[in-house]
Amino acid sequence: MIAQRTPGFSGADLSNLLNEAAILAARRDKKVIEMPELTESIEKVILGPERKSKIIDKEEKNIIAYHEAGHALIGASLKNADPVQKVSIISRGHAGGYTLSAPQKDRGLLSKNYFIDELSVLLGGYVSEKIVFGDVTTGASNDLERATNIARNLVTRYGMSELGPRTFGHKEEMIFLGKEIHEEKNYSEKTSEDIDKEITRFIGNAYKVAENILTQKKAVLEKITAVLLEKETIEQEEFNKIAGIKKEDQKEKKELRNVPLPENLA
Amino acid sequence: MIAQRTPGFSGADLSNLLNEAAILAARRDKKVIEMPELTESIEKVILGPERKSKIIDKEEKNIIAYHEAGHALIGASLKNADPVQKVSIISRGHAGGYTLSAPQKDRGLLSKNYFIDELSVLLGGYVSEKIVFGDVTTGASNDLERATNIARNLVTRYGMSELGPRTFGHKEEMIFLGKEIHEEKNYSEKTSEDIDKEITRFIGNAYKVAENILTQKKAVLEKITAVLLEKETIEQEEFNKIAGIKKEDQKEKKELRNVPLPENLA
Amino acid sequence: MIAQRTPGFSGADLSNLLNEAAILAARRDKKVIEMPELTESIEKVILGPERKSKIIDKEEKNIIAYHEAGHALIGASLKNADPVQKVSIISRGHAGGYTLSAPQKDRGLLSKNYFIDELSVLLGGYVSEKIVFGDVTTGASNDLERATNIARNLVTRYGMSELGPRTFGHKEEMIFLGKEIHEEKNYSEKTSEDIDKEITRFIGNAYKVAENILTQKKAVLEKITAVLLEKETIEQEEFNKIAGIKKEDQKEKKELRNVPLPENLA
Amino acid sequence: MIAQRTPGFSGADLSNLLNEAAILAARRDKKVIEMPELTESIEKVILGPERKSKIIDKEEKNIIAYHEAGHALIGASLKNADPVQKVSIISRGHAGGYTLSAPQKDRGLLSKNYFIDELSVLLGGYVSEKIVFGDVTTGASNDLERATNIARNLVTRYGMSELGPRTFGHKEEMIFLGKEIHEEKNYSEKTSEDIDKEITRFIGNAYKVAENILTQKKAVLEKITAVLLEKETIEQEEFNKIAGIKKEDQKEKKELRNVPLPENLA
Amino acid sequence: MIAQRTPGFSGADLSNLLNEAAILAARRDKKVIEMPELTESIEKVILGPERKSKIIDKEEKNIIAYHEAGHALIGASLKNADPVQKVSIISRGHAGGYTLSAPQKDRGLLSKNYFIDELSVLLGGYVSEKIVFGDVTTGASNDLERATNIARNLVTRYGMSELGPRTFGHKEEMIFLGKEIHEEKNYSEKTSEDIDKEITRFIGNAYKVAENILTQKKAVLEKITAVLLEKETIEQEEFNKIAGIKKEDQKEKKELRNVPLPENLA
Amino acid sequence: MIAQRTPGFSGADLSNLLNEAAILAARRDKKVIEMPELTESIEKVILGPERKSKIIDKEEKNIIAYHEAGHALIGASLKNADPVQKVSIISRGHAGGYTLSAPQKDRGLLSKNYFIDELSVLLGGYVSEKIVFGDVTTGASNDLERATNIARNLVTRYGMSELGPRTFGHKEEMIFLGKEIHEEKNYSEKTSEDIDKEITRFIGNAYKVAENILTQKKAVLEKITAVLLEKETIEQEEFNKIAGIKKEDQKEKKELRNVPLPENLA
Repeated sequence: MIAQRTPGFSGADLSNLLNEAAILAARRDKKVIEMPELTESIEKVILGPERKSKIIDKEEKNIIAYHEAGHALIGASLKNADPVQKVSIISRGHAGGYTLSAPQKDRGLLSKNYFIDELSVLLGGYVSEKIVFGDVTTGASNDLERATNIARNLVTRYGMSELGPRTFGHKEEMIFLGKEIHEEKNYSEKTSEDIDKEITRFIGNAYKVAENILTQKKAVLEKITAVLLEKETIEQEEFNKIAGIKKEDQKEKKELRNVPLPENLA
Repeated sequence: MIAQRTPGFSGADLSNLLNEAAILAARRDKKVIEMPELTESIEKVILGPERKSKIIDKEEKNIIAYHEAGHALIGASLKNADPVQKVSIISRGHAGGYTLSAPQKDRGLLSKNYFIDELSVLLGGYVSEKIVFGDVTTGASNDLERATNIARNLVTRYGMSELGPRTFGHKEEMIFLGKEIHEEKNYSEKTSEDIDKEITRFIGNAYKVAENILTQKKAVLEKITAVLLEKETIEQEEFNKIAGIKKEDQKEKKELRNVPLPENLA
Repeated sequence: MIAQRTPGFSGADLSNLLNEAAILAARRDKKVIEMPELTESIEKVILGPERKSKIIDKEEKNIIAYHEAGHALIGASLKNADPVQKVSIISRGHAGGYTLSAPQKDRGLLSKNYFIDELSVLLGGYVSEKIVFGDVTTGASNDLERATNIARNLVTRYGMSELGPRTFGHKEEMIFLGKEIHEEKNYSEKTSEDIDKEITRFIGNAYKVAENILTQKKAVLEKITAVLLEKETIEQEEFNKIAGIKKEDQKEKKELRNVPLPENLA
Repeated sequence: MIAQRTPGFSGADLSNLLNEAAILAARRDKKVIEMPELTESIEKVILGPERKSKIIDKEEKNIIAYHEAGHALIGASLKNADPVQKVSIISRGHAGGYTLSAPQKDRGLLSKNYFIDELSVLLGGYVSEKIVFGDVTTGASNDLERATNIARNLVTRYGMSELGPRTFGHKEEMIFLGKEIHEEKNYSEKTSEDIDKEITRFIGNAYKVAENILTQKKAVLEKITAVLLEKETIEQEEFNKIAGIKKEDQKEKKELRNVPLPENLA
Repeated sequence: MIAQRTPGFSGADLSNLLNEAAILAARRDKKVIEMPELTESIEKVILGPERKSKIIDKEEKNIIAYHEAGHALIGASLKNADPVQKVSIISRGHAGGYTLSAPQKDRGLLSKNYFIDELSVLLGGYVSEKIVFGDVTTGASNDLERATNIARNLVTRYGMSELGPRTFGHKEEMIFLGKEIHEEKNYSEKTSEDIDKEITRFIGNAYKVAENILTQKKAVLEKITAVLLEKETIEQEEFNKIAGIKKEDQKEKKELRNVPLPENLA
Repeated sequence: MIAQRTPGFSGADLSNLLNEAAILAARRDKKVIEMPELTESIEKVILGPERKSKIIDKEEKNIIAYHEAGHALIGASLKNADPVQKVSIISRGHAGGYTLSAPQKDRGLLSKNYFIDELSVLLGGYVSEKIVFGDVTTGASNDLERATNIARNLVTRYGMSELGPRTFGHKEEMIFLGKEIHEEKNYSEKTSEDIDKEITRFIGNAYKVAENILTQKKAVLEKITAVLLEKETIEQEEFNKIAGIKKEDQKEKKELRNVPLPENLA
């Protein structure tokens, strides 16, 4: 279970993790580290410490709950997305809430289909705010940046777009700037426009998929949000029960995504 | 009340604040710091020290009064804008006057509607000068820069424009230049043009809203200005009385903003 | 009088000024610094030391005289321009001659109308050379650079052009280059073209205004030049007498400027 | 045999190679270094150490096997490509698997025909994934980058494209950046577009060639993959037997490539 | 006479000049520096030492002679150009020959008409080679660079082109690069094209003027060249005699320049 | 003879040359340096040491021989090209072979006609490979880079193209980068396109000339190649005999070049 929740951890990360768990165990007067300490420590290492003291007003808690519920519901609804492990509206680090999802195995190769579903998951919070409140907040900005970066990589690094099996641009690390990465634009303006169009197409498609799912499953979205506002955190098993998500549903949702998109997004 | 007026203050800021208040209290032969010392110190920390010695001629005082009255009246008239706390034409730091407005809660998430109203508030000084004098001054340049930055972020960071839920450009801090932030333009000229159009559209709409409000409430604008020229500073309660602003009015004004804009701005 | 002639002087500038005046007084065997020493020192601090030893041939003196007379006459003819204090064809620093004009008060806010008249004043030397000799010289290059910078700021910093109340570009000081200011072009080619057009329009209009004034007042221009060639320097009072400038004339000239411009400039 | 497998090795590389071989021999209680130690060491020096401890799940092993089989089968099928020496799905360095091919001689001059076939070999892994799984993974990204670089050099360094016998751009090493190479773009946007088109054309043609071969030889591809999954590594002789590759076949495949391409790629 | 031949000399240059003259006088066993020593030293300081040892073959001498004769004859033929002081085909510094021309006074202001004639003088060597040999050499490259720089300054620094009385671009010295001057391009592509057109127009007109003069005065060109090949150096007085140049001729030539140009150059 | 073969040698180069010759003489037990030592040393200084130990296979030797024969035959066939001194397929430095040609005099001025013929000489190796093998190799890449640089200089430095007698761009040495030369692009995209077209036109014409010559003299090309493969090196006298080149032939070939080119190249 630990291996499954710590993909990509280095030796130093694992050492740090056990340290945190040992501190927790000591606080709880335990002689040995047990599962709960490990689970909490994993989240602390990945997301930063809980900020329980941070007082967030009710209106904002509400927005955060719908936002996270949006991520989680999309994640649970798409076949290639990683399954949801935990949803929470406890503030951690800079984030107001978080949705944890870990792959069932330590992924080495990531496929185009996986990225396409992940884009919808990333836009899930934004879309949920829009559907529920008719307004969007700055809370989604980190999601949008990650989605844009993934879409750009699909086009420029992985040959997964209509522009074909090639790369664009040349990445070079400039060491004197503290490992900053500089992207050399070694292509024409025309190509730059084509890349922009592909990125916008990926994002637009992912948006439409997320919108379709959340619109059709609005009742489930409301239910997840209600439980989140009540309990603050939902673990995997309970989440699946609330959301009524089974393997079969996932396949069904997957088909939904293959429905032809409205013209302006296709 | 202190918490409400010091959103975003770090521990160091609060410590600095109390230091300033203690100095003020000592000057006034008080044994304890009281509310007036704290209020004054908050403004000093945010805006810099008062520059009472700076002699500003009458014509300029007049322009500054109309400018600040413009900001304050727009701020009071729009539903999503932060309420006005204080308006003043006492010079502080580089500014000739200032309008203080603090949110009713410590905002973590800012919404698109909030930014749209804030843009009109920022343009309020410029529009007021234009309506009253038929001329504009360099006094608005900092407002314009902030408004432009907000509009740009709406488009490029927050996915709040017609260009969709994605980010544009890549911000990187270059530490060797003293934390200068460099914006890498990783998109095409065509996209750059689209971004420019969206920024201009946001600014144009905000201008029109501010112009509508100040034109219709010109008498109130004159009244605020007159009191400012007489007393130099107006606190929240008095301001609301002078301006005749009630909750209901705010809702009404909000509707005004939804009136379709002239074609060239819409 | 000193305050009026030293707008923007820092404490160090004032200290430097009094030092220069003290030296002058000592040279003249005075025990106290008097007005003439102060006046001379102000000019030395602003413009650099006089270069009486520099021998300039007659033809060049003639050009310089017409050039400075051009600046001065435009300055005296436009309502929003600063009044002329002194005109001189004594070489100072790099300049062959100079026209001193100081605002009647310490300006904090500068208006669009002020800048528009200043543009005509700056082009006055160039236009005078063109009208009188049918040729222009390198003597105007510093004027042209300042005019272009003002026009650019009207568009990009002060929201005073047709491009609306916003800023363009991002100025950042790069400290490691000795306070060099770098302008980050954060807008599209299309916008860049629009900015160029606005700058050219401001300059074109200012040129036309200056041309109209100097063509109509050619006789006055000749008179000022003649006195300059004879006396080398003309002080404010004498200048106004020679030029026949009264408050009323200024208003009249102002109207001239409002005459619709020829199509290619408007 | 050693010379054939170590093209481009420097003296230091050869010294390193023998060192590694000596360590291996010592581990095996041998007094002298023999062929197997040398062979293993060559691969270690070129590709990095084996990572047998890395656990890769079955699904991923399957993808890697088809990917490497794709490279190998294209390499064996094209006349100008280097013959396949070894195919393996043992993880080495960052790669999940590898296909080793060494030229029959130490090449000094590389021809256009050689590069064109190498492009198809590089795309072989990507095409194999696409044909077999209908999806592609990040495992091909390094292949795509190398293919793009080769195609760019054909156009900009070697005069081997439709743009004629000239070079484009100016490469300069900037030593203070740790031998980073900077490419100066000394040509127009129009030329930049032409270069992009040529690169895309080379890649598109290579893709089509690889697709044709793997589609027609799908049964062979399956056979190679099956053996790879069973034995993990296939040496040259065995590979040729499994793949049924003879000199004559290669010539035949070559002709295939000369079949006119579909319009959108030609 | 010394003052006339040393325009722009600093104190250090003058000191250097007298030093050189003193050395020459000593070599000639003179007790005092006389005029010939001064004249020779001026040329050495401006152009570098004579390189009499450099053996230049006859064909090349011939080209250099026609080239310098071209410069000199244009200089003598245009009203606003500086009069010719000396023509020589003795190699100095990097130059194969040189034409010395000094203004009759220490110019402070340079007019548009002066620059326009200087452009023709600079192209005189190139045009002479073309007319005489039907081929041009690298000997003109420095002339072309200077002419291009002048034309660019006419447009971008001095407001002397059709683009009006403004400047383009922002020059900044970057001190850490050893006083390298960097030109910041703060205008649009469209403007950049306009600047290019103006530069090409200035150069094209100057070329046509030079071509007209040398074609019509081919016999004089031949005569000057013949004397140069015989004597290597021609001083001002002799030059004017050979070339048959009188004040009146200069005025006449000037009119030639005002003849409308062929369409592709105008 | 030494002077003729060492154009552009500095004092340090000559000193280095004699040192190498002295070492050679010592190895041969000579008391004095004689002509053969000097000749060998000149080549070593210009091209780097011979790499006789480098084993190049037969196929590659064949390509190199045709490549060098191509250079040499074009050089011998064009009137303005420098005469061939020596052709060799002995590897030196990075080059597989070399063709030495030295001007009959120490050239100071290089003419447009000279450069145009040199372009064909540089492309001679590439064209020879293409005609003989129907394929081209990386062996020509240095030739192509030099040809492109010459063509660029014709346009941007020497005013020898259709773009007229002016320069384009501003070269500045940036000393802190180890004398790297940076080219500042101070012209518009439109001009950049024009420059690209001119460069391509020069290269295209030179290609056509080389192709015409080698196609018509294919038998001579074969003969030179055969002798090269047999003897590895051919000296000037022998080369002229094999190639049957006489002064008269050169003039004839020259006329060939003036034959109108096919439309797409002209």
